[in-house]
Amino acid sequence: MPAILVGDGRLGGISATISAYESLKLRGYDVTAVIFEDHGLVNEVPLLSYFRNRVPVLVLPPVPKDMSDDLMSWFDESQPIFISLKEIMISDFIKRTKRLREMPKKACDVFWWPFTQHKRIPEGNVTVIDSRCGENFAIHKVKDFDWISQQFDACASWWTQGPDPNLQLELARDMGYTAARYGHVMFPENVYEPALELAEMLLESVGKGWASRVYFSDNGSTAVEIALKMAFRRFLTDNNLLSCHESANVDGRCMDLKVLALRGSYHGDTLGAMEAQAPSHYTGFLQQPWYSGRGVFLDPPTVSIYCGIWKVCLPEKMQILNIGQECVSFSSHDEIFKINRDGSSLAGLYSSFISQELPVLLDSNGLSHIGALVVEPVVQGAGGMQMIDPLYQRILVRECKNRKIPVIFDEVFTGFWRLGRESAAEMLCCQPDISCFAKLMTGGIIPLAATLASDAVFEAFTGDSKLLALLHGHSYSAHAMGCMAAVKSLKWFKDYNVNMKIMCETRFLQELWDAELVLQISSHPVVHRVVALGTLCAVELLAEGCNAGYASTYASSLIKKLREDGIYMRPLGNVIYLMCGPCTSPFICRPILEKVYARIHEFGQQKSASATSELGIC
Amino acid sequence: MPAILVGDGRLGGISATISAYESLKLRGYDVTAVIFEDHGLVNEVPLLSYFRNRVPVLVLPPVPKDMSDDLMSWFDESQPIFISLKEIMISDFIKRTKRLREMPKKACDVFWWPFTQHKRIPEGNVTVIDSRCGENFAIHKVKDFDWISQQFDACASWWTQGPDPNLQLELARDMGYTAARYGHVMFPENVYEPALELAEMLLESVGKGWASRVYFSDNGSTAVEIALKMAFRRFLTDNNLLSCHESANVDGRCMDLKVLALRGSYHGDTLGAMEAQAPSHYTGFLQQPWYSGRGVFLDPPTVSIYCGIWKVCLPEKMQILNIGQECVSFSSHDEIFKINRDGSSLAGLYSSFISQELPVLLDSNGLSHIGALVVEPVVQGAGGMQMIDPLYQRILVRECKNRKIPVIFDEVFTGFWRLGRESAAEMLCCQPDISCFAKLMTGGIIPLAATLASDAVFEAFTGDSKLLALLHGHSYSAHAMGCMAAVKSLKWFKDYNVNMKIMCETRFLQELWDAELVLQISSHPVVHRVVALGTLCAVELLAEGCNAGYASTYASSLIKKLREDGIYMRPLGNVIYLMCGPCTSPFICRPILEKVYARIHEFGQQKSASATSELGIC
Repeated sequence: MPAILVGDGRLGGISATISAYESLKLRGYDVTAVIFEDHGLVNEVPLLSYFRNRVPVLVLPPVPKDMSDDLMSWFDESQPIFISLKEIMISDFIKRTKRLREMPKKACDVFWWPFTQHKRIPEGNVTVIDSRCGENFAIHKVKDFDWISQQFDACASWWTQGPDPNLQLELARDMGYTAARYGHVMFPENVYEPALELAEMLLESVGKGWASRVYFSDNGSTAVEIALKMAFRRFLTDNNLLSCHESANVDGRCMDLKVLALRGSYHGDTLGAMEAQAPSHYTGFLQQPWYSGRGVFLDPPTVSIYCGIWKVCLPEKMQILNIGQECVSFSSHDEIFKINRDGSSLAGLYSSFISQELPVLLDSNGLSHIGALVVEPVVQGAGGMQMIDPLYQRILVRECKNRKIPVIFDEVFTGFWRLGRESAAEMLCCQPDISCFAKLMTGGIIPLAATLASDAVFEAFTGDSKLLALLHGHSYSAHAMGCMAAVKSLKWFKDYNVNMKIMCETRFLQELWDAELVLQISSHPVVHRVVALGTLCAVELLAEGCNAGYASTYASSLIKKLREDGIYMRPLGNVIYLMCGPCTSPFICRPILEKVYARIHEFGQQKSASATSELGIC
Repeated sequence: MPAILVGDGRLGGISATISAYESLKLRGYDVTAVIFEDHGLVNEVPLLSYFRNRVPVLVLPPVPKDMSDDLMSWFDESQPIFISLKEIMISDFIKRTKRLREMPKKACDVFWWPFTQHKRIPEGNVTVIDSRCGENFAIHKVKDFDWISQQFDACASWWTQGPDPNLQLELARDMGYTAARYGHVMFPENVYEPALELAEMLLESVGKGWASRVYFSDNGSTAVEIALKMAFRRFLTDNNLLSCHESANVDGRCMDLKVLALRGSYHGDTLGAMEAQAPSHYTGFLQQPWYSGRGVFLDPPTVSIYCGIWKVCLPEKMQILNIGQECVSFSSHDEIFKINRDGSSLAGLYSSFISQELPVLLDSNGLSHIGALVVEPVVQGAGGMQMIDPLYQRILVRECKNRKIPVIFDEVFTGFWRLGRESAAEMLCCQPDISCFAKLMTGGIIPLAATLASDAVFEAFTGDSKLLALLHGHSYSAHAMGCMAAVKSLKWFKDYNVNMKIMCETRFLQELWDAELVLQISSHPVVHRVVALGTLCAVELLAEGCNAGYASTYASSLIKKLREDGIYMRPLGNVIYLMCGPCTSPFICRPILEKVYARIHEFGQQKSASATSELGIC
């Protein structure tokens, strides 16, 4: 909402007015004009200079001190000022709404949106976001006249968001402070408080017990590229393979290092991160002619709620064996993470499959090696919100560690309470050698990433020569504002005095999605499976052929209806999902999930109606 | 400097105190305590709640109204409060200095700095940065007792910095506002003011006349990866090679696309960006086992000041030919950029060399193509501040355009007045198809990158299927805070009402480095060459063998001395450089350059003394 600031024309009024203006800005207000009563001090001159003439400053004549004065002559005298103020307000409003109305067309003309086929986005489909407050967007629409309405950001703006309105305001103040105090200062060989505090916090939380170093970069993709470079060097030194390198050809390339990964995983869009992903639409020649898939990709078992029951879904290869139902069905998600599953027959099956698959991958001449394992622990995000059986990932990690293959956890999506615990590694009950964090780390304000590493990994880069160091960096490595946002957000998320959603005994996030409603949704005939864990509730719609997969537009009518309900969703093909922040109340989540259920039901009725009519035509 | 805020205990004093506190924060102050006179309104309660008990609030007894009162009894009554305030101040000071003193050790323990051999960084070498203001760091040091002193950030914090103290304060307020107003909101299919305004501004400035679309990402490296994906697709469609792809093998890989680039160029550290660089220490097996160098790398002619004269230095291959001195010597840098050089015999030489080199690169079976040209226009930054002959780059661009090879300018380093003009493309007088910007774009506050593209490039991605779209993106694409910082900074840099360094007639940046002094430095016996252009003044020291090149520590004693002089430099091997922002005054630059000259002279004397003594030993 634009604001009129009633300033102060008295002695001391200049600074009071400036401070009040700054407090409004720090709450996201546009100030249309400043107006104050004249006390003969010409306060408007320094104010206009402070505003650099960008905000009009109006001065009213002194209000008569005589209490018996009916003020009529003062009003007469003031009228031109009030008229002028009204004109400023009206002209500002007209300018603002004109701009808002033009924005969809202009956006279609100048933007190149990521992951978007522009030809399929008519102007009418463009969402005009006037502001955000906590989990909600304020959306501008024109229906007869101009409207601003709320929409719940159900995709957490690509999984970055965490703050509630209180944290957002605290972050705003901290961002202003950090920009004034530090701006950005270069990182190598330097230290400054926000970077140091964040590094210490990360090592004391998600890195506790295994990590000793923090490497900063800008996003998940760069964090993964750095992790791969770290892992390969550690692998080469740990397996005494650097001597082979020294006697290698001119390029120094004597061997082929591959990465072990799970099919369906996603680690970012820069080439190095892409190479660690199995071939898909994202990696095809049309998208990246340089991609060759430098990985060995395993098919993992997944877990979801099918018709009200958490069940393991085994990949085809594993289905030949007899596994008792008690091993693959669970009454709650807590059971799936229980460590006593390590003794089950399923654990034996996983272990033998992994052992079978691993050795054949190393060639006989010793020139091809698996130099790293990289997984998204617990849930694969962009791959369609697939929960991987944690037992399988735990065994995979163990098998890799036994073979001196460094283990990378890509926690860009899963880290910092996204799945209900501070890290997904904690849920798996195992520790990586390297771990990548980004997205939610800054509370979803600005980009920052961190790659955490164990001491053994770090040691592989120390030596006398600079050329042994990790020669990778980004200009804004450990930029102060990102570090400060992360310090504030990570503290806030886990502090049960300010974030009541953290249970003070267990330090888990409380259940956000109504358990009964989740089971009900999973039992709906148009629903294939559901995963509800922490801040995530994903629903895969039953779909076949071109209706399934990433390029599917199967869910688009459902998404459209939900936007009418004030829920801003963005599907992953035929998978739709709700995502909130670690500060979001279950009381906010419940009615949203109810709306989703109602729309899924409606969607099902339409599908069955159209199926019946098609049958009629046949 | 920590501050004590004298608050207001009167009616309205709560908001006045909060606003004053926020104004202090927006100027980078730490507030140690708030103190105010009691007016019986218990203002401390809401204030403590606002501060979430993180700032102590002290209340003084009411000051007697009687003018004849000598206030002694008031002082007596107030004494415990003043003592308590003093204790808070002292304990805060002790805590602060203790932390500052510990920081070097802690930094060495937990950070993993980029491009740094940790084994060679003793604690004493770590710089503790307590704050920055405009171009200067405030550095904490312990010499007998604690000191805070200024250092000029002469590497512009890895070439990101631009603001003067005024712009920094404006940015701080805007960052607070944007965090409160938008936080971050997701970009695809959406529009919000800061992103739209920035896109419009970029197309109206550095993209004017050729670009029609803006693609946002996080840093220079991702901007280049995106540019390469764009260029390859454009190349394939423009040359009707997509049909070949359609009849290709399962992977869709029927051809090898290479990038044409100049030796010595640098485009970032993610794998795709690295592949566009010629082999070097950065790209070796030790650093990135996956690098293969997917480029054809040409040796470019360079230009520098040698002994007081701007001269072209031709690569070995070209030196066989007779070129008149008038073609390779210039009296000023302006002459080097003159378009009439296109008619010179040197232009003919360049043209024929490029023509000779280009066709042989395409193989006879049509399965290998040059799919893109990528260059850093005018100056190669990380490659040692090498200025490439603009005539050569202009001809290279023309030759590529003639062959339907899309042209990418990597302006991450060169963009936004770094070299004295808004873009390096403007200096070259030619237009690319795709251009990458980052670093200085946000005024050096937070990471943001933009890849600009022509309409023809964009059109290669439109079609009916989503799979034709550019499936690349980062969570924080076009994040509001980065866009707002860029809007503010780019406007400020070029507005000659606030930035007097822009000359209002020519719209060029005025000369910042004293021309005579620059020539003098270039003539010093220990100096090999100098490049002074825009905000950059680079000096290559004469060095041989292990003293030359990236891993050299040849300049380290010189750098150490300059830090004692209050100039924070970071060398590129045996190249040292000064870099300021587009708002920095020549009056700041002059004494700094003088200090550099003095230290170079001293360095020379030491070198010749040690050479003499070595001679003696021999």
